[in-house]
Amino acid sequence: MTAAQGTDYGVLFDHGRHGRIGLPEAVFCQGKPLRSVLALLGEYAQNSTPILFTRLAEEVFAAAPAEVRARYNYDSLSRTAYAGTMPARSCGLVGLVSAGTADGAVLGEAARTLEYLGIAQERFEDNGVAGLWRLTANLPALARADVLIVVAGLDAALASVMGGLSPRPIFAVPTSVGYGMAQGGKAALASMLVSCAPGVAVLNIDNGYGAACAAARVINLLGEKGRQNDGA
Amino acid sequence: MTAAQGTDYGVLFDHGRHGRIGLPEAVFCQGKPLRSVLALLGEYAQNSTPILFTRLAEEVFAAAPAEVRARYNYDSLSRTAYAGTMPARSCGLVGLVSAGTADGAVLGEAARTLEYLGIAQERFEDNGVAGLWRLTANLPALARADVLIVVAGLDAALASVMGGLSPRPIFAVPTSVGYGMAQGGKAALASMLVSCAPGVAVLNIDNGYGAACAAARVINLLGEKGRQNDGA
Amino acid sequence: MTAAQGTDYGVLFDHGRHGRIGLPEAVFCQGKPLRSVLALLGEYAQNSTPILFTRLAEEVFAAAPAEVRARYNYDSLSRTAYAGTMPARSCGLVGLVSAGTADGAVLGEAARTLEYLGIAQERFEDNGVAGLWRLTANLPALARADVLIVVAGLDAALASVMGGLSPRPIFAVPTSVGYGMAQGGKAALASMLVSCAPGVAVLNIDNGYGAACAAARVINLLGEKGRQNDGA
Amino acid sequence: MTAAQGTDYGVLFDHGRHGRIGLPEAVFCQGKPLRSVLALLGEYAQNSTPILFTRLAEEVFAAAPAEVRARYNYDSLSRTAYAGTMPARSCGLVGLVSAGTADGAVLGEAARTLEYLGIAQERFEDNGVAGLWRLTANLPALARADVLIVVAGLDAALASVMGGLSPRPIFAVPTSVGYGMAQGGKAALASMLVSCAPGVAVLNIDNGYGAACAAARVINLLGEKGRQNDGA
Amino acid sequence: MTAAQGTDYGVLFDHGRHGRIGLPEAVFCQGKPLRSVLALLGEYAQNSTPILFTRLAEEVFAAAPAEVRARYNYDSLSRTAYAGTMPARSCGLVGLVSAGTADGAVLGEAARTLEYLGIAQERFEDNGVAGLWRLTANLPALARADVLIVVAGLDAALASVMGGLSPRPIFAVPTSVGYGMAQGGKAALASMLVSCAPGVAVLNIDNGYGAACAAARVINLLGEKGRQNDGA
Amino acid sequence: MTAAQGTDYGVLFDHGRHGRIGLPEAVFCQGKPLRSVLALLGEYAQNSTPILFTRLAEEVFAAAPAEVRARYNYDSLSRTAYAGTMPARSCGLVGLVSAGTADGAVLGEAARTLEYLGIAQERFEDNGVAGLWRLTANLPALARADVLIVVAGLDAALASVMGGLSPRPIFAVPTSVGYGMAQGGKAALASMLVSCAPGVAVLNIDNGYGAACAAARVINLLGEKGRQNDGA
Amino acid sequence: MTAAQGTDYGVLFDHGRHGRIGLPEAVFCQGKPLRSVLALLGEYAQNSTPILFTRLAEEVFAAAPAEVRARYNYDSLSRTAYAGTMPARSCGLVGLVSAGTADGAVLGEAARTLEYLGIAQERFEDNGVAGLWRLTANLPALARADVLIVVAGLDAALASVMGGLSPRPIFAVPTSVGYGMAQGGKAALASMLVSCAPGVAVLNIDNGYGAACAAARVINLLGEKGRQNDGA
Amino acid sequence: MTAAQGTDYGVLFDHGRHGRIGLPEAVFCQGKPLRSVLALLGEYAQNSTPILFTRLAEEVFAAAPAEVRARYNYDSLSRTAYAGTMPARSCGLVGLVSAGTADGAVLGEAARTLEYLGIAQERFEDNGVAGLWRLTANLPALARADVLIVVAGLDAALASVMGGLSPRPIFAVPTSVGYGMAQGGKAALASMLVSCAPGVAVLNIDNGYGAACAAARVINLLGEKGRQNDGA
Repeated sequence: MTAAQGTDYGVLFDHGRHGRIGLPEAVFCQGKPLRSVLALLGEYAQNSTPILFTRLAEEVFAAAPAEVRARYNYDSLSRTAYAGTMPARSCGLVGLVSAGTADGAVLGEAARTLEYLGIAQERFEDNGVAGLWRLTANLPALARADVLIVVAGLDAALASVMGGLSPRPIFAVPTSVGYGMAQGGKAALASMLVSCAPGVAVLNIDNGYGAACAAARVINLLGEKGRQNDGA
Repeated sequence: MTAAQGTDYGVLFDHGRHGRIGLPEAVFCQGKPLRSVLALLGEYAQNSTPILFTRLAEEVFAAAPAEVRARYNYDSLSRTAYAGTMPARSCGLVGLVSAGTADGAVLGEAARTLEYLGIAQERFEDNGVAGLWRLTANLPALARADVLIVVAGLDAALASVMGGLSPRPIFAVPTSVGYGMAQGGKAALASMLVSCAPGVAVLNIDNGYGAACAAARVINLLGEKGRQNDGA
Repeated sequence: MTAAQGTDYGVLFDHGRHGRIGLPEAVFCQGKPLRSVLALLGEYAQNSTPILFTRLAEEVFAAAPAEVRARYNYDSLSRTAYAGTMPARSCGLVGLVSAGTADGAVLGEAARTLEYLGIAQERFEDNGVAGLWRLTANLPALARADVLIVVAGLDAALASVMGGLSPRPIFAVPTSVGYGMAQGGKAALASMLVSCAPGVAVLNIDNGYGAACAAARVINLLGEKGRQNDGA
Repeated sequence: MTAAQGTDYGVLFDHGRHGRIGLPEAVFCQGKPLRSVLALLGEYAQNSTPILFTRLAEEVFAAAPAEVRARYNYDSLSRTAYAGTMPARSCGLVGLVSAGTADGAVLGEAARTLEYLGIAQERFEDNGVAGLWRLTANLPALARADVLIVVAGLDAALASVMGGLSPRPIFAVPTSVGYGMAQGGKAALASMLVSCAPGVAVLNIDNGYGAACAAARVINLLGEKGRQNDGA
Repeated sequence: MTAAQGTDYGVLFDHGRHGRIGLPEAVFCQGKPLRSVLALLGEYAQNSTPILFTRLAEEVFAAAPAEVRARYNYDSLSRTAYAGTMPARSCGLVGLVSAGTADGAVLGEAARTLEYLGIAQERFEDNGVAGLWRLTANLPALARADVLIVVAGLDAALASVMGGLSPRPIFAVPTSVGYGMAQGGKAALASMLVSCAPGVAVLNIDNGYGAACAAARVINLLGEKGRQNDGA
Repeated sequence: MTAAQGTDYGVLFDHGRHGRIGLPEAVFCQGKPLRSVLALLGEYAQNSTPILFTRLAEEVFAAAPAEVRARYNYDSLSRTAYAGTMPARSCGLVGLVSAGTADGAVLGEAARTLEYLGIAQERFEDNGVAGLWRLTANLPALARADVLIVVAGLDAALASVMGGLSPRPIFAVPTSVGYGMAQGGKAALASMLVSCAPGVAVLNIDNGYGAACAAARVINLLGEKGRQNDGA
Repeated sequence: MTAAQGTDYGVLFDHGRHGRIGLPEAVFCQGKPLRSVLALLGEYAQNSTPILFTRLAEEVFAAAPAEVRARYNYDSLSRTAYAGTMPARSCGLVGLVSAGTADGAVLGEAARTLEYLGIAQERFEDNGVAGLWRLTANLPALARADVLIVVAGLDAALASVMGGLSPRPIFAVPTSVGYGMAQGGKAALASMLVSCAPGVAVLNIDNGYGAACAAARVINLLGEKGRQNDGA
Repeated sequence: MTAAQGTDYGVLFDHGRHGRIGLPEAVFCQGKPLRSVLALLGEYAQNSTPILFTRLAEEVFAAAPAEVRARYNYDSLSRTAYAGTMPARSCGLVGLVSAGTADGAVLGEAARTLEYLGIAQERFEDNGVAGLWRLTANLPALARADVLIVVAGLDAALASVMGGLSPRPIFAVPTSVGYGMAQGGKAALASMLVSCAPGVAVLNIDNGYGAACAAARVINLLGEKGRQNDGA
């Protein structure tokens, strides 16, 4: 099989990507025609190559035949599906921290992507800084994580607070929750980018998948270094 | 003297404003021609009506004659001047909290306006949430204030944290510090407006004067109610 | 009962907030999944803790069982519901002033939040400055209020006019009414933030709930001071 | 002389414009090289065709030879100059109303353009709505004007108030005064465009010249209709 | 009957407006609840006071009873309705010029508002500057109009071309047609505001009603002056 | 000599670019340190490889030694310099059309870049659509050009008018002239992108160099096709 | 038949445009009323003049009678229809390159417009730079094209890469795919406009039709020059 | 010494930060008053605690006494200074890749911050994708880095290309180079955030310091894991 493999659905996959950057292809379903998404779901249901579907709306998934659906692990909140996952990694733990309930879908997308990538994770929801005691209570548990993903909308103050409390790599994801000057997540994005805490790196609005990939790049590096050390 | 009093400098003052809304006129100097500002400084140096000059740049003030300057209390960081202040109030304390050193000029404008209005105040600087212990240490002192003014730029996370910790009226002032996505204070403004803490009210970017006036409206109300109680 | 109480609906409430900042938790329903909102409505129908639901659309409320709905005071214009209210305060009156009919939903959200908080209020609608006599006629009644909430969209000129006429604390809420350059309320927001009247403080677009909380912070302060005076 | 007349300064004038639309050419100096502006000043000093220079900075005008300067009526606040004016019109009065002192330069540009066009005018400055009594006192005098130009920055509430009080054609000019969310006049512009008063027409930010031209179009129409009536 | 007359529908009309500014009240229906609009349609069907309904969607009007609908002159493209019009004026003609077919609804709103106000008008559609010959052919007819309304979206180049060809008062209305960088009409709005033709005044995006009111202010002035001349 | 040639000034030139895409490297001077620009000017003064300097301010060029300056053809309006040009092309004529005098610097940058590339050109300045007769008079001459570059600021209506009159490839360059809603050229850019004339392609604001390169790509194609034809 | 031909559907066609600029009229259907689009489809089904319908949604086309639909070549992805095409050109090949599957509709609109114009073309999809090998493999085939159209959303990096690899005229079309900071295509648009590759010209977001017209202007020029050469 | 240590210069340092998050305090000089910066430079010249000064303009540094300057390692391009560095790390290499010469100051700020932090690094400048061969030649060397920092302005296409070629953690810094639609770096920022390559994390515009801190968080993690492994 060559690196580039065409399909019947007008999609040219980059299956060589996994070998090149350690992250397999994913299918971003939003905006794709229903028939394309269903065809891809059908094909990968029978395929040994694991693949991740993101932004897969409940009604789209429901339109697939029952036997196809039966092959997938689907989660409606995060709108993700996979038939199989990558092998579990022997090292690395990602902590996922969110500010409010409304950030759950994005945190879920990040968490499910990590599951698919075989990376261990722990979730800490509802840590908005308007009730700081909730975050404080979680700090000891958060200290065990190697990498942190912080998911927050509105003022996104959680990213700054975490950035000032933890020495770990932090990937911050602004969410599009809120109205008015929340501006579909632009307020949270700007807030994270100008955070007064040093070294907090930011992903696109609602991009839970991207945060998981960024975290995976660090975990992959840890794994490789670990193997080098072991081999030495 | 009638409510409206013309001057020779093309400025029609609203001296009746104090009686109407409890806040005397102030002269916003930025953008006014040098000769107008100097003439007003000269006139009010000899005038018993107290008046506040804001955004009065050091080089503009320096251009006034020495005997005029001698009559004023001028502060270069906050760029404010007054020859006299309003009588000190018998009640009400305003706490001024800022996130970083760069917010000092705006905090100063608010503090000096309160001084001019005769309102007691206490300043708490450098409480940025990236180092939460600094704020925590100040909480007992902050609890003594009747009204809080929170001055912060960048992510303005301090406003949300304060809003979740204090029951007092909170007036938040975004500052124009920072670069790139700080967008001249628009990031901080949006962050404060969409704060996850309820009931935090917001002023224009860098508007320390406005925050002091908003606080004064509350202190004036307290004073009036106190007098009613005393009178009862 | 501890300060943090988990529920079965993925929501971690901050019931300690009332004790800390004098404002109880509220459930912002917009964007939450139907099943979560219905579950919360069901639980609080039987619960002695009063709670406020905001942005609760008519069709969502209608989906609750009749016996649950019977326990709530629901208002479709303001999209708010509560089963019980906080005890009525012995002091403080909030005046709510709006510019046009289209601002009614936001004024309603503020008014209903105050009702829920047990705070007395009076409403003054349709005072747009294009017909100044309407506002003029209401001025004597408005003078009785301790705090003013001004709700206006479009040019939001009402906030400036009120700010120049009243000495009271003023919380201004821009609304998203209008089209074209109204920009979903951004024109009104900017207009209020740069108001030529001093000390007008601003909330997020359409945030009637926030304005009520800001007003409540002042009323709570008045109450506390009154109790101190009474105790003295 | 043909309609198009080249000059030595790389500027192709449209001297036929006056005949076509009743408004003579003007030279917008800002951004033009010093030598071009000086050459044009020199040429028109000796020229019987009246021409208006706008945005002519004091230091640029000062760089012209004394004998050239002597031929011009120059005003430094409005940054306008003309050597001669158009003949005075027999009909039509334009009222110019501004909100604050800082709007004076833009009001001046409009007023001086009208002077140059030979149109009668009256100025009413400092009518900001935060002190409504100032405007109220001017209403009888304003009622004598045929056309109104309203100049205001910040919240530009004056345009709405005037639009609700006067039946006359109103041309509103937002100004770039203010800071932060005044956004260089964009807040005032949006406020005027979405004004709750019907039929208020708007010019570009700081475009006093354009407002005078818009008013002149109405005055020209009045004049033409008057001559038709007289001729009948 | 007093100037302010309440209704049962939560709307406080400003019926005195006609006397004050020569423009009667209009009901902007978009965003108002269905029941309010229907009630107002019902009431004014039986009322001798003429009133204009704008942004009245076809499906909303269709929901009114047949006998109510029968009383109104309704136009679905412009989404306007009126039961009666103001008396026809003896003087003044408004020319309405649009760039493309898609601008028809806005041009229609302006034209129908003028009909309602009793003002004579003529329509010239499809004059986009990409086919200049269409405009050229209409110029002689356009020269008969006293006031011009120019309606254009996209690049709005028609406003500049008209402004350079006609000496009449010109009110330009940007429309929200187009996609991408048309930005819902903001490109057209900016283009009109910075037009290289002098004295073109601008209304809000899609505000055909406002342009008609602006034109009516000029026609009203012409009428008044004509009556003064006749009386002289 | 290899394709990549380092210099002592921290700049890695892509001298292979000419062979690859037919356009030689150019040095964009704005923002580069003075010493780097001077060093490059010095080096290329002695170098047989022609190179173009753009955005080379007069005061920067003046800082070079006289013997270096003597080697360059420098133009202060367009801020461009070259020591030699590419060989003149045997085919292809580019017409450069601008709207106003203030667009001259950008038109100049395009024209001088074409000179440097050895491409014939003709300039047509001051064709703003507010005086359409100026453009009409130039149409016969414009018809001789193979490619058109249209340079316009403000409303940029000229691009639409040209796009509707000429069948040639048109490259439109918005300029940053104007104030207020001209928004540094964003109004002109949007206007050009949404032009009602089909197939007008747009460059970045003030990017005269880019327009010349786009035109050169077409002229290069014409030349290559001509050589193929000749060779056939 | 005259140049301007009215229809019964309120649309004034510019059928002379083909003769003038070499590009026939097209009907942009989006936003037009259903009845107008259906009437035009009906009329042109029987008409020998070829015409192109763009943005013709599947459900709109489906509403036409079967015998009308039978006359058209309709494509649902690109939402285009034509009953006949222009005669095939004897010269010129346009290469269409896209970055991702989601750009297919816009690439399709460009490709179908070229088909309609009788211009030869070749499509190269899925060349996103995150997998550079896909583009590299296509380079030899791309080198045969005379003109390139590059269609890309998100970061639009493909336009810069192509601009650095090919000497051909390049017309870049940003697409509105993506979420968050993709900003409906504004990120891709800005990226293309500031491309580090020289001479890449840009069309409006999603404007595949415009890119085809821009390419056709070049192909038309090639054809004309070829005929001149042949004639010589 | 306690965690918080006041100074005489109105700055409250968070010296405990190093222990908490592994990153020492830095002084952001831009916007601070000259006297404060000079005082801090003076104090730390004699202090054994290493500290980093960023955005320290050449003229500000030059204003310090010679004996103070002698203690610092100052770099004018990156505007950074330090008197001493943190101890060199035993593991971890950061690769710094930039697109163009103009990105050098930001790349320099990142590189110098890493030097100060004792982290090994290698620089690869001028890899803009318009000349892909430059990047290709550097790929083997880049493969040795553990973490990559990608610095690019304009279209920022380099971040996407690198993200598709390397499996390493990538921190992308948009720069404010360019004009027009580069929008002070916002085009590059948006381009990086919506990159088609997965897991690229982004910092604020021009924030080289932040990118170095983000990289340091990863290197610190590697170091800690390495020590754990060694200890095991």
